[in-house]
Amino acid sequence: MKLWDKGTPVNKAIEEFTVGKDRELDLYLSTHDILGSMAHVTMLESVGLIEKDELPTLLSELKKLYKEAAAGNFTIEEGVEDVHSQVEFLLTQKLGDLGKKIHSGRSRNDQVLLDLKLFTREAIKEIVESTSALIDVLLKKADTTKDILMPGYTHLQVAMPSSFGLWFSAYAESLTDDLELLASAFRITNQNPLGSAAGYGSSFPLNRQMTTDLLGFSNMNYNVVYAQMGRGKVEKIVSFALGNLASTLSKLAYDVCLFMSQNFNFVSLPAEFTTGSSIMPHKKNPDVFELTRARCNKLQGVPGQISMIVNNLPSGYFRDLQMVKEVFLPSFKEMNDCLNIVTLAVENMSVNKEILNDSKYDYLFSVEEVNKLVLNGVPFREAYKQVGAQIEEGRFHPERSVEHTHEGSIGNLCLNEIGEKMTTVLQGFHFERIGEAKNKLLNG
Amino acid sequence: MKLWDKGTPVNKAIEEFTVGKDRELDLYLSTHDILGSMAHVTMLESVGLIEKDELPTLLSELKKLYKEAAAGNFTIEEGVEDVHSQVEFLLTQKLGDLGKKIHSGRSRNDQVLLDLKLFTREAIKEIVESTSALIDVLLKKADTTKDILMPGYTHLQVAMPSSFGLWFSAYAESLTDDLELLASAFRITNQNPLGSAAGYGSSFPLNRQMTTDLLGFSNMNYNVVYAQMGRGKVEKIVSFALGNLASTLSKLAYDVCLFMSQNFNFVSLPAEFTTGSSIMPHKKNPDVFELTRARCNKLQGVPGQISMIVNNLPSGYFRDLQMVKEVFLPSFKEMNDCLNIVTLAVENMSVNKEILNDSKYDYLFSVEEVNKLVLNGVPFREAYKQVGAQIEEGRFHPERSVEHTHEGSIGNLCLNEIGEKMTTVLQGFHFERIGEAKNKLLNG
Amino acid sequence: MKLWDKGTPVNKAIEEFTVGKDRELDLYLSTHDILGSMAHVTMLESVGLIEKDELPTLLSELKKLYKEAAAGNFTIEEGVEDVHSQVEFLLTQKLGDLGKKIHSGRSRNDQVLLDLKLFTREAIKEIVESTSALIDVLLKKADTTKDILMPGYTHLQVAMPSSFGLWFSAYAESLTDDLELLASAFRITNQNPLGSAAGYGSSFPLNRQMTTDLLGFSNMNYNVVYAQMGRGKVEKIVSFALGNLASTLSKLAYDVCLFMSQNFNFVSLPAEFTTGSSIMPHKKNPDVFELTRARCNKLQGVPGQISMIVNNLPSGYFRDLQMVKEVFLPSFKEMNDCLNIVTLAVENMSVNKEILNDSKYDYLFSVEEVNKLVLNGVPFREAYKQVGAQIEEGRFHPERSVEHTHEGSIGNLCLNEIGEKMTTVLQGFHFERIGEAKNKLLNG
Amino acid sequence: MKLWDKGTPVNKAIEEFTVGKDRELDLYLSTHDILGSMAHVTMLESVGLIEKDELPTLLSELKKLYKEAAAGNFTIEEGVEDVHSQVEFLLTQKLGDLGKKIHSGRSRNDQVLLDLKLFTREAIKEIVESTSALIDVLLKKADTTKDILMPGYTHLQVAMPSSFGLWFSAYAESLTDDLELLASAFRITNQNPLGSAAGYGSSFPLNRQMTTDLLGFSNMNYNVVYAQMGRGKVEKIVSFALGNLASTLSKLAYDVCLFMSQNFNFVSLPAEFTTGSSIMPHKKNPDVFELTRARCNKLQGVPGQISMIVNNLPSGYFRDLQMVKEVFLPSFKEMNDCLNIVTLAVENMSVNKEILNDSKYDYLFSVEEVNKLVLNGVPFREAYKQVGAQIEEGRFHPERSVEHTHEGSIGNLCLNEIGEKMTTVLQGFHFERIGEAKNKLLNG
Repeated sequence: MKLWDKGTPVNKAIEEFTVGKDRELDLYLSTHDILGSMAHVTMLESVGLIEKDELPTLLSELKKLYKEAAAGNFTIEEGVEDVHSQVEFLLTQKLGDLGKKIHSGRSRNDQVLLDLKLFTREAIKEIVESTSALIDVLLKKADTTKDILMPGYTHLQVAMPSSFGLWFSAYAESLTDDLELLASAFRITNQNPLGSAAGYGSSFPLNRQMTTDLLGFSNMNYNVVYAQMGRGKVEKIVSFALGNLASTLSKLAYDVCLFMSQNFNFVSLPAEFTTGSSIMPHKKNPDVFELTRARCNKLQGVPGQISMIVNNLPSGYFRDLQMVKEVFLPSFKEMNDCLNIVTLAVENMSVNKEILNDSKYDYLFSVEEVNKLVLNGVPFREAYKQVGAQIEEGRFHPERSVEHTHEGSIGNLCLNEIGEKMTTVLQGFHFERIGEAKNKLLNG
Repeated sequence: MKLWDKGTPVNKAIEEFTVGKDRELDLYLSTHDILGSMAHVTMLESVGLIEKDELPTLLSELKKLYKEAAAGNFTIEEGVEDVHSQVEFLLTQKLGDLGKKIHSGRSRNDQVLLDLKLFTREAIKEIVESTSALIDVLLKKADTTKDILMPGYTHLQVAMPSSFGLWFSAYAESLTDDLELLASAFRITNQNPLGSAAGYGSSFPLNRQMTTDLLGFSNMNYNVVYAQMGRGKVEKIVSFALGNLASTLSKLAYDVCLFMSQNFNFVSLPAEFTTGSSIMPHKKNPDVFELTRARCNKLQGVPGQISMIVNNLPSGYFRDLQMVKEVFLPSFKEMNDCLNIVTLAVENMSVNKEILNDSKYDYLFSVEEVNKLVLNGVPFREAYKQVGAQIEEGRFHPERSVEHTHEGSIGNLCLNEIGEKMTTVLQGFHFERIGEAKNKLLNG
Repeated sequence: MKLWDKGTPVNKAIEEFTVGKDRELDLYLSTHDILGSMAHVTMLESVGLIEKDELPTLLSELKKLYKEAAAGNFTIEEGVEDVHSQVEFLLTQKLGDLGKKIHSGRSRNDQVLLDLKLFTREAIKEIVESTSALIDVLLKKADTTKDILMPGYTHLQVAMPSSFGLWFSAYAESLTDDLELLASAFRITNQNPLGSAAGYGSSFPLNRQMTTDLLGFSNMNYNVVYAQMGRGKVEKIVSFALGNLASTLSKLAYDVCLFMSQNFNFVSLPAEFTTGSSIMPHKKNPDVFELTRARCNKLQGVPGQISMIVNNLPSGYFRDLQMVKEVFLPSFKEMNDCLNIVTLAVENMSVNKEILNDSKYDYLFSVEEVNKLVLNGVPFREAYKQVGAQIEEGRFHPERSVEHTHEGSIGNLCLNEIGEKMTTVLQGFHFERIGEAKNKLLNG
Repeated sequence: MKLWDKGTPVNKAIEEFTVGKDRELDLYLSTHDILGSMAHVTMLESVGLIEKDELPTLLSELKKLYKEAAAGNFTIEEGVEDVHSQVEFLLTQKLGDLGKKIHSGRSRNDQVLLDLKLFTREAIKEIVESTSALIDVLLKKADTTKDILMPGYTHLQVAMPSSFGLWFSAYAESLTDDLELLASAFRITNQNPLGSAAGYGSSFPLNRQMTTDLLGFSNMNYNVVYAQMGRGKVEKIVSFALGNLASTLSKLAYDVCLFMSQNFNFVSLPAEFTTGSSIMPHKKNPDVFELTRARCNKLQGVPGQISMIVNNLPSGYFRDLQMVKEVFLPSFKEMNDCLNIVTLAVENMSVNKEILNDSKYDYLFSVEEVNKLVLNGVPFREAYKQVGAQIEEGRFHPERSVEHTHEGSIGNLCLNEIGEKMTTVLQGFHFERIGEAKNKLLNG
């Protein structure tokens, strides 16, 4: 069943090729599509395109469909092209000609734009919640390990003293910046495209501000050509923000894989978090972090994939955009799985408290010795040369104590300040407005 | 069931995360895994690691499994980690301790390397066959349309006369170069990694030349560290060769989408090859070419995705490589679907025979007029200025005939020469050797 | 001259290879490096690491250097490794041992981090200014062309009526979202890394809040390990925001190139904005938009390039980061050149007022006719079928008038609302704070 | 001076923007452009477009220009658009109208296509030579270190014994596959595009086989539309082959950076190959390998950049292609610099002979112990469990001897076989044919 069926049957091979994975992917969108239709018909009634008495019937039927979809019972039937067709088809089965009215003043183009934005808003919300849970765990872990020193490296060469507190909370602060970028992607997403129809608006007297309010959007994509142009663009921006978050996890995972090597032996995981080898009976491998790294690296490739699809297309809708769904929609679950598994693994990670006793870490303290000379009045470059000479001649025997006091240093981690950064960003999302609007539409 | 099970249960969340889509993806590899095991046990017997009388029993059981897998009846059971475990598990169920012997002298690392190469060889073969079918169709189409002129563009500005014959056969020749690159990717693939074990070889007296011959490889990856290093690298090279092929199809699809616009109206498809709009009753859209373009553009992103996963990993196996399967394995079917649908659509494409009558195409002939002056002895730059002046002053009225004679021009398409390029490349694959080796193992 | 010289000469080939383009690229950073040093020494004095009477001498000498650098007279001498070394070298030449004191409490790692952030803040400011100038031009152009209709396309098929007003202002609104993303990138950038030293802080009692305030940063990168981790990350985020802006220009450029084709003939440029062909005397090519498109497409690749360099590096500084400068620093000028040239070209663009008279655009009005039936009570799907039948049977003769009234449609462009979106985003940058801080440091 | 000058001055800003870096980049092409012109005029004379007595005059003047260019004395003057214009301009200065004749039967489009191919052929030759020099050094190094054991890792966990011989020669064999891909890229490049003119051929009776032979091409791009389509495509393929080579070097560099860390201490460089820190007096950093890694990672991004520029352009020339030169042309020198510096550094690298004495490497030998049990008749899975139990219970005390005999293993490195792989690929290039053709043109 096709919304545009004009009686000419479509070639079977062409149909199979063009439908692609759409029926499967559109399941991500089903609740959102129904919610969007509720707002749309409410607005249509207000401008006289649906009769006063027809609205409650339509809304009631749509609410039933919503419940089914929310319960996971919505499927797109064989032969039905997409989620939009399926909803219209089900309505028409129940309500006859009334069902056919809901498509007035819109096109599948703005409908799928809307669905994608409603989906993306909620998907970002889930990611943000998982991210803030991970930040919390990292800050707690930093607090409990703040006195345990570890080597700091530059060029992977032993460099200066670091601490586990510093290491864990570095990733917490990194995630707050990642949330900041996500917030911007969210703001760009959270604008109403409905009413742009096929990308050139409608001759019906639509009230776009009304659907903007009903759906809890913070603003609208005014220009209808731009609303359509947003398809692919919004996904690219959001997937870059996800990829940026993923890159923080990937780096953390890389550190862990390195630090679990026998050559470092800085951290360890419980045995039941590791995996073995089919031929080496001694292996306890950090597969969970390797796969986190790989998944996160894959996620970083998504914006590039979207670019390859949408770049160098002129303005106006193209069917190419359907393929963007294929790379975009599944990426949220992948990201969320990674966030959750890393949170679990970090919570269960043990750190080695006796690392620095090894003599290979002596040089960590060379700058401390230089600085002591400076504090005694030796100009920095002179002090540097003196300690350098001690090292060359094997006369370097450092004290192994560290006294760092400035903001963000070993002795002053500023965990509260990092926590506040997170709180500030979280407040900017105003997720509550989405919930309120949804609640009102479904129960109001 | 895990090959490395040592009695400690793995955390449920970790297990689910690490297995990922492996059980699903490994189905691509099942027949190849069994074939590889047949070669491996044959070799093990020859070096005394399996008894003379055990070999026939193992081979007979593996052949049965192969038939099941080839018939699509092989599944990886819930709780079994991967295809390698499933095969060993089934063998051990049937043959007891004898089944446990087949893993001697190999690791899952070289086993999956081998499976991937056996799979890739056959997958490339299928792509090459579909590509040569498309080349044939393009050359035929070029031949039947060789006298029909169309505008040639530079900068999307009307430039010089072209023809449909020239346009169709351009893509045929492009595909021959794509096959050349695929041939190189095939040669790099077609080397035996078996015997590299976990990437550091084995203390067993393996005979790697024997498995190389049994499996019809043209050579072996000698160095066992390099054999392991090939994982990810081979997939990246092959997927680039696929992406390069895809870019030819993407460009063809772009041309068709442009040429089907009412603003060009150069080519058309039968109604049953087009799709409609949910709000515009007049639309007959070239979705099949838009989706070809988008799929092909997505495919061009695969090598970049693989790079993001494998780049900056040092030598040695990492579990990250598992994720490469997820982007690599499905890409062959996507590519093949595109090749087949384009072949079908090109076969059914009609071309417009009356394009050049429109006055907007007059300037196509300006170079012809310049060249006539040159042939009458006017230096090129002078002739160029004279015709330029005619155009500026509205005095330009060209003859609309074209007489191009040189190789590869409108009047001399060299379709045979292009066909020969294809034939030469095809012969270099030697696919027959794969078939012979397989046949011998299964029926010999 | 190297800050770390210990008397062993470096191999010539190694030196040349490792210095690379650093001496050339560091010129982007010279004024910023000097400004950073002024803030650093002011802070050092406040915590007792520089004597009260030494500070004015240092500041006065640094101001002189700043003036030279701002005037373009700063060069990094042959044999001097980088900008940081050159500044320290010049100071020491003038002030002797006092010059050697300025490196106390910092490393080149946080120094270059700081320089990059100071540079990036100003570079973003310039981009934002050019972008808002382009938005202004697009909104003006939209206003003067708001009554001129043009065809709207979907699938590059004639679809529904559009207008030049709609088309120009679509890009204006697109740019406001691009500014929103840039604002987020700016906020992530605008945090002080100074004091993180080599990535592990310092044993000196640094006052990082003081340098944060002196340099007009809105916040600091607290965690010193994260401050270092920001290298590469910040550049990747900023270059994605630039690339996103670039993709809007690229799409505009694509449209223009298409619309200048004789097959569309919607817009034109003055002759002196076009370029010719070496063999076709009639050509007036839109090279300026083709090169804008290509440059902008290249810019979109920058974040991917940075990812390839920094991805899968563990935490801690690596020299690899030097290469990021090579792809990052020049991209602002390229972006800015594109913004300025597009602004100039759009200002000078003429639009064709008589497009829709051509009969190939009749179908543009099919939805209008469907909607009229709907307004007369025919259910949408029925009306769709009736008009579809008229078209199939050649009975479709539309009225050519358009009456769209809703927000963002042809008849209601909402140019003011789009302008307000821009203003809101612009205010969020608070660029004035940068200027004030700089002014205070240099003249205070 | 522009070849297409028609008297209308071009807007200054537009001119500057469109010329871009062309005058600088075209210097890469100057000798090749002149050589191509020599072949072109020789052919023009043979088909009667240049008089018999004019040819020697033109050739003689072109030879003089070639010598100047080869000596580095060719510059593109201010105001001259590109290399093609400069050559024509110089000829016309000397020879008057005769100089204007050389552009008959060609366009700048096929001229730059030709120049790029001539340049690329020679640039690949240089890369191949540097690569084979590196292979030689790696094989020699492998031979001298073949008895020195090192740990082999999987998951960065201590896994099984490896050796320096194995490690060095792994990269040698990797490079032979990289050469194989380069050979394919070379074959695709080494086809003559001259005569395709602006992409639609010429009405002159050109003899394209003649220029193919004169320039030593192995074949021609027959179809003139395809010849033009090859622009961007050939560069993408070649740059992927370069990127693939770069990825081998990047991995080697990653290994070295890891192995030089104090936590591994497997290899070291002479002091004069390392660099220091501005604050840590003890540092000897492997910057040369970090920068090799970063440069090589950047090079891997080139094909993606080219894709972003050329993807989704329809057939026919676009000025966008000019930007491809900017990313493509400089990449060969970057690649070559990396190859040479790695060759130098590997030659001077020392390896640690006493690594395995450390008890953390005991488990390397667990598979050896499993295999011994297997050779004594214990089924593999049983043996695996027994050794696993020994390890868990702290009863594992391995013998530290390794006896691997199969092809490509520690005891049988197959260095000759790897060398033969290289030789076979090298012979396929037939570089001598290029030299012969060039020699004949210049001196014949």
